[in-house]
Amino acid sequence: MADGGSPRARALLQQCVHARLQVRPPDGDAAAQWVQVQRGLLIYVCFFKGADKELLPKMVNTLLNVKLSETENGKHVSILDLPGDVLIIPQATLGGRVKGRNMQYHSNSGKEEGSALYSQFVCLCEKELAANSKCAEAGVVVQHGTYGNRQVLQLDTHGPYTHLIEF
Amino acid sequence: MADGGSPRARALLQQCVHARLQVRPPDGDAAAQWVQVQRGLLIYVCFFKGADKELLPKMVNTLLNVKLSETENGKHVSILDLPGDVLIIPQATLGGRVKGRNMQYHSNSGKEEGSALYSQFVCLCEKELAANSKCAEAGVVVQHGTYGNRQVLQLDTHGPYTHLIEF
Repeated sequence: MADGGSPRARALLQQCVHARLQVRPPDGDAAAQWVQVQRGLLIYVCFFKGADKELLPKMVNTLLNVKLSETENGKHVSILDLPGDVLIIPQATLGGRVKGRNMQYHSNSGKEEGSALYSQFVCLCEKELAANSKCAEAGVVVQHGTYGNRQVLQLDTHGPYTHLIEF
Repeated sequence: MADGGSPRARALLQQCVHARLQVRPPDGDAAAQWVQVQRGLLIYVCFFKGADKELLPKMVNTLLNVKLSETENGKHVSILDLPGDVLIIPQATLGGRVKGRNMQYHSNSGKEEGSALYSQFVCLCEKELAANSKCAEAGVVVQHGTYGNRQVLQLDTHGPYTHLIEF
């Protein structure tokens, strides 16, 4: 996060053993669609007003390289070095602030802007994993939720090891 | 959060349909022990240096009364008004700050102090739910993780609706 300034984006990281996220709700006779990941990292992400695409490479670099994934031996390495799956979840609620008994989201980026940033963020994560030989060899994947949808989520962890990182 | 100051505590809230948390790891022949909650609220909590027990009533009041639980009709009410279960998870990692590729936890409260604050926080939450007639009638419960343990967690949500609140 820029020293002393307001954050332009907020990410919340949790480890998972397995997770499953709905990407399309059921519609009439059509069943819901889901994506799933095995052992890896959940990235919940929220953009604030003032965020722009120049911010994204730094965010992706930090999130994929910070040592928050635990090996079998209890050592902490990055998700790229684990290597493990990544599940990206758009989570605008992370930008909320308490006002009385309600939450306000005045600092959040607008819907179109947030959606564009989210798509580019996902795309950059995919590229980074694809370009990493360890990840490519291990066949790990990036999955992601649909911006604007309800993020119906099932999460199985061996300790979520929850971290907040602001940019 | 005190205007302009550093936070003294950080709470992360997620809705759940069902959640299960390990409170004692397996030990020799003894199986692990778990607690579980049905529909309700997960509260991940972390205390910073400078937090004291005078902070706790305000925290508990805010967290249990903020309207972040969704009724069947899609309306948002407090967890006390839902009414729903509460699962409290100690999560010191929430106090981490990125330093290069590692996280540092220099602002976190000491272990003994954090443990004492956590116990009192849990106790206050239990009292509030017990004193609430709607909660008592519905038989909702407060469950909580063991401070210092690995928080092995299984979470099932209809949208985690993740919110961060600092004090």
